[in-house]
Amino acid sequence: MENIQEYSHKRYNPLTGEWVLVSPHRAKRPWQGQEEEPSKEQRPSHDPTCYLCAGNKRANGETNPDYNDVYVFVNDFSALQKDSKQFTVNDGLIKAEAEQGICKVICFSPDHSKSLADMNVKDIQKVIHTWQNEYVTLGKQPNINYVQIFENKGAVMGCSNPHPHGQIWSQSTLPNEVVKKDNQQKAYFKTHQKTLLQDYLKQELKLKERLVFENRAFVVLVPFWAVWPYEVMIVPKQPQEDITKLPREETILFAEAISVLTKTYDKLFNTSFPYSSGIHQAPTNGEDNDHWHWHMSFYPPLLRSATVKKFMVGYEMFGMAQRDITPETAAKTLKHLADNLY
Amino acid sequence: MENIQEYSHKRYNPLTGEWVLVSPHRAKRPWQGQEEEPSKEQRPSHDPTCYLCAGNKRANGETNPDYNDVYVFVNDFSALQKDSKQFTVNDGLIKAEAEQGICKVICFSPDHSKSLADMNVKDIQKVIHTWQNEYVTLGKQPNINYVQIFENKGAVMGCSNPHPHGQIWSQSTLPNEVVKKDNQQKAYFKTHQKTLLQDYLKQELKLKERLVFENRAFVVLVPFWAVWPYEVMIVPKQPQEDITKLPREETILFAEAISVLTKTYDKLFNTSFPYSSGIHQAPTNGEDNDHWHWHMSFYPPLLRSATVKKFMVGYEMFGMAQRDITPETAAKTLKHLADNLY
Ligand SMILES: O=P(O)(O)O[C@H]1O[C@H](CO)[C@@H](O)[C@H](O)[C@H]1O
Ligand SMILES: O=P(O)(O)O[C@H]1O[C@H](CO)[C@@H](O)[C@H](O)[C@H]1O
Repeated sequence: MENIQEYSHKRYNPLTGEWVLVSPHRAKRPWQGQEEEPSKEQRPSHDPTCYLCAGNKRANGETNPDYNDVYVFVNDFSALQKDSKQFTVNDGLIKAEAEQGICKVICFSPDHSKSLADMNVKDIQKVIHTWQNEYVTLGKQPNINYVQIFENKGAVMGCSNPHPHGQIWSQSTLPNEVVKKDNQQKAYFKTHQKTLLQDYLKQELKLKERLVFENRAFVVLVPFWAVWPYEVMIVPKQPQEDITKLPREETILFAEAISVLTKTYDKLFNTSFPYSSGIHQAPTNGEDNDHWHWHMSFYPPLLRSATVKKFMVGYEMFGMAQRDITPETAAKTLKHLADNLY
Repeated sequence: MENIQEYSHKRYNPLTGEWVLVSPHRAKRPWQGQEEEPSKEQRPSHDPTCYLCAGNKRANGETNPDYNDVYVFVNDFSALQKDSKQFTVNDGLIKAEAEQGICKVICFSPDHSKSLADMNVKDIQKVIHTWQNEYVTLGKQPNINYVQIFENKGAVMGCSNPHPHGQIWSQSTLPNEVVKKDNQQKAYFKTHQKTLLQDYLKQELKLKERLVFENRAFVVLVPFWAVWPYEVMIVPKQPQEDITKLPREETILFAEAISVLTKTYDKLFNTSFPYSSGIHQAPTNGEDNDHWHWHMSFYPPLLRSATVKKFMVGYEMFGMAQRDITPETAAKTLKHLADNLY
């Protein structure tokens, strides 16, 4: 396996069926391009101008309650709407379908100054319980067959408000990425009678080359097929279709995994580390979803400092994702930081 | 078709087989997030510190010749290499393959201050002739089965040098996006004995809702399934597998299409408009590629001004691409500008 640390190659992502190009020798490339603004602002615990802080007015005129921990509401600018009109267009190569859905915003904490990395594990656990409730409640709504939980953190990731928050977009059909993972996991389960990630974890726990952190119920690792420089996946050791299958006493272990990872990220470049994270889990379509093994992924853009990010542009848009440092190098760096957090 | 301008829906991209979520009602969303730095710098025609200008030293110590029009050289930091080692890894769910390739840089003009939008049509034609030569030369190299021509323009698109230039990455296997378009076009051609884009153009030329510009040989349009706010595709009217099939007397018409589009873009927000562009064309794998109809796409990130871009983040990474303004609105705006260029 030493050639893999030296020569250009592509790696296969069995969850999506797609490949990523890895160019280990290219890590030395000098950078003269755009630099990002690192977020070094000190934020107050309550910002009177923030539309997510407790007691403040939102864009649509509503007032937020004086919430104490987690607070969820329907997005004032939902990309998907529950009662939007049904229609289809099917005219030769011009094909469209109405899509209904419900979009929510979830404030992780009333404290404007905090991110998940600054919150304690018990408070992160409350966020997890809310995700579980929302997955169930939204999933039961008529015409909702998939629930996407995600967070955009940092201005560089298109986040327009630094108040700690994530989103949940739920909708009638399965989006592209979920269709890919559904197909791949289904095919694997059919052949092996085990989930794909169950077998993958077994390999990774033996190889120990890409592990970042582990507790009784979770593995935090850089997947072999990671696209983003410091991409990480949190995977439950037990095969579970969705986050509601996580035993109540293990939600604290999920919270711990999130806490360790986000703190590690912040230490990497000494900055509040930007990323988009998301949970891929079984659709709520009422079908047999035994083949699903839920997991949470983090896609952070920073490449070599708080200001230099990886751009997924030309070749990546027209060809395929490309990365320079190898997942093994990234994992080693993150593991070292995680091991020395306290 | 009026519902489509009002309600959330998804549109099908027959070239890739994937969908894009369209939320027309969301265009009014206020923006409080990150703003980009518009490029307002005045550049000199020759910059002594630029490693792409004629006569200057490059990062690897070589000196550029005193070139007069287009200049091509092998990328000093190639992501793919010609002589890199062959190997495969196939260990359960851990799967990788060596990938060989040749990466080149193509300077469009010796004039450091110009972009394609500022160059005259005859000079753009020289760029096209170089693309044609490179497609043939690279495609003939052993173990090169696909040639990706692209340009990253603007710092926001990861371009690290403002000197007008593009890139060509060629490689042994077909990257993900090309595999999708290969499959979809092949299936369509088999059923209809015509290329997919041939039939699509027929529809668009009749509907006239998404056209931006047209000449004898080319159509410039916003595809029905466009992902980026002002995404545009340049398509030859005749079905041609690759750019070398373009009759010599029509390369000037391709140059005109590129010129009109890039000038239109610059007028849209009164800024040197950033984008990634790329040409998708038949692989050079020696197979029967009758089903391919080459086309050039432009993916520009700006959404509503020179400083506010669309972020493809959380939902888009985990679910599917999402857009606010409809392709019809974008096309109308661009067409109006294109009609009044001079
Ligand atoms: O090769 P360049 O221009 O230095 O680099 C740019 O284009 C490449 C190809 O799209 C990307 O991989 C890089 O992330 C981007 O910064
Ligand atoms: O909904 P927000 O946070 O205003 O918007 C952000 O996240 C959305 C979902 O990933 C994206 O579509 C937007 O481009 C991004 O700016």
